[in-house]
Amino acid sequence: MIWTITPNPALDVTYYVDQLRHGASHRIEEMSVNPGGKGLNVARVLIQLGEPVAVGGLLGGATGMQLVELLAQKAPQAVQRWTDSHVPTRTSVAVVDDDATLFNEAGLAPAPAVWQELRQLIQDEVQEGDVVCISGSLPGDTPPHVFGELAKAAQESGARVVVDTSAAGLLSAAPHADLLKPNEHELADATGHRSIYVGVRALQDLGASAVAVSRGGDGMELWADGTVWRAKLPYFVEGNPTGAGDASVAAWARYMQTRAGDDWAAGLRDAVATSAAAVAKPVAGEIDLALRERLLPQIQIDRSEEEAC
Amino acid sequence: MIWTITPNPALDVTYYVDQLRHGASHRIEEMSVNPGGKGLNVARVLIQLGEPVAVGGLLGGATGMQLVELLAQKAPQAVQRWTDSHVPTRTSVAVVDDDATLFNEAGLAPAPAVWQELRQLIQDEVQEGDVVCISGSLPGDTPPHVFGELAKAAQESGARVVVDTSAAGLLSAAPHADLLKPNEHELADATGHRSIYVGVRALQDLGASAVAVSRGGDGMELWADGTVWRAKLPYFVEGNPTGAGDASVAAWARYMQTRAGDDWAAGLRDAVATSAAAVAKPVAGEIDLALRERLLPQIQIDRSEEEAC
Repeated sequence: MIWTITPNPALDVTYYVDQLRHGASHRIEEMSVNPGGKGLNVARVLIQLGEPVAVGGLLGGATGMQLVELLAQKAPQAVQRWTDSHVPTRTSVAVVDDDATLFNEAGLAPAPAVWQELRQLIQDEVQEGDVVCISGSLPGDTPPHVFGELAKAAQESGARVVVDTSAAGLLSAAPHADLLKPNEHELADATGHRSIYVGVRALQDLGASAVAVSRGGDGMELWADGTVWRAKLPYFVEGNPTGAGDASVAAWARYMQTRAGDDWAAGLRDAVATSAAAVAKPVAGEIDLALRERLLPQIQIDRSEEEAC
Repeated sequence: MIWTITPNPALDVTYYVDQLRHGASHRIEEMSVNPGGKGLNVARVLIQLGEPVAVGGLLGGATGMQLVELLAQKAPQAVQRWTDSHVPTRTSVAVVDDDATLFNEAGLAPAPAVWQELRQLIQDEVQEGDVVCISGSLPGDTPPHVFGELAKAAQESGARVVVDTSAAGLLSAAPHADLLKPNEHELADATGHRSIYVGVRALQDLGASAVAVSRGGDGMELWADGTVWRAKLPYFVEGNPTGAGDASVAAWARYMQTRAGDDWAAGLRDAVATSAAAVAKPVAGEIDLALRERLLPQIQIDRSEEEAC
């Protein structure tokens, strides 16, 4: 089973307007509400790939209840195992005209005992051989070491651990992660190094096994076992990059479950193709399955030794 | 008792940002959530004036429950008598930097039977001599004649009826309103006449008794009994005009309860002072009581016959 843990999910509200005008009043006639949060995007991609998935993390209040109901409607295949945060789940508002303007509430930090409950759930329910993906931010002013504690709980349950987060949370998770997936900007921010090579080494020095660095249109790099694999798309895929990283996490989770480490190039090829297949869809959490199939054999991969970088 | 009926209340969410940037992602660290809707602003001003008040209208879903709880915290003096709409209460989002950018959901229209329930509540609970204020918009694509039906139910209960709405709702309410309070733009939009005189006559021809036309910094006019009273502030009051109209409705409601028609100039003086006292407060639904007291004796009122206009 693959688990996706979202510590700070959101009720995603989208308002469609003709044109966003600063200082004006907009009457919203067209809108949508969706279950949001990076771990839920990962789960929805896994479902499209036919993979059984369980979702967990923190939820609370009326917005939390609404999220559970919406997810049950939109992704009934997902097993839901939430921990009650006893604080309302945040809302994220996107205002869409010819562009998207986002307002992401930071969320409210729960009491520390709530994190203990979530770790206990991971220990009780995650099985040897499962994969646990932990994605996104922590709510409010939650201390970043919580990310490491969640990753440690998953690792101690015998699961392989994939982490997609930023800043101090990324550093905190490194010692307990089988794969970290920062993008190049998050890597530089968290480690303070603009060189991908130096940044990856910093994460590996903290204990990370493999590091997948996404570089937008420039492809993705996978660093592991003293080697780096670099993948590029055969052509530029136009669309919405929101959710592309989550789609690559879904691909990495499948790879880690079945063949972790035996063929990093194959894992990277799948991650890049699945990520591009998400760009082609306007909504985060969806992928173009046919595009993914077409891209898979066309992705070029170069391999070199780390020392040569 | 004064009743304020809000057919389309909202959960008012305010996001505070340094600067709203089109196409950017904003992390929201500071926000507030308040019970919103014009009738609730009227009720909160009445409470500050020491007036007993009952609030009603339609509420539903998780957002509706949250609104009830917030209102009980912030205005425990208000008696709450809501009708369940069986659809979620809308949210309004304000993004505040050096200006305010508003996103007002239109709301979802309830089943027609819900309006019948609200009319029944008005018939059952409103007493002879009460005042009923009906304020704001109708949810979604609710037909505007609903406004007239609500006003009629209140009138038939023996109450005096004050209506603050726009467009076809204003026309629909006119035959059953003791006082209509459009601003000059709403009057022109609803009646199709740019002349205040002609617009007011159109509403009076439909059956409206008195019409108070607010003109922002240019003051307010009260048209009734073939006469027009015009009031001006002694000086410009700086601040936030949102909620100024609701404050004037609160003042008119008190006037209609105790001395309707016996001294329109006194009512107008109070409406203008209370409205300006709301401008001085940054939050809709609050008034500066001391400023209101200071302004009251300073407001100039001119009186002329309608035919002279």
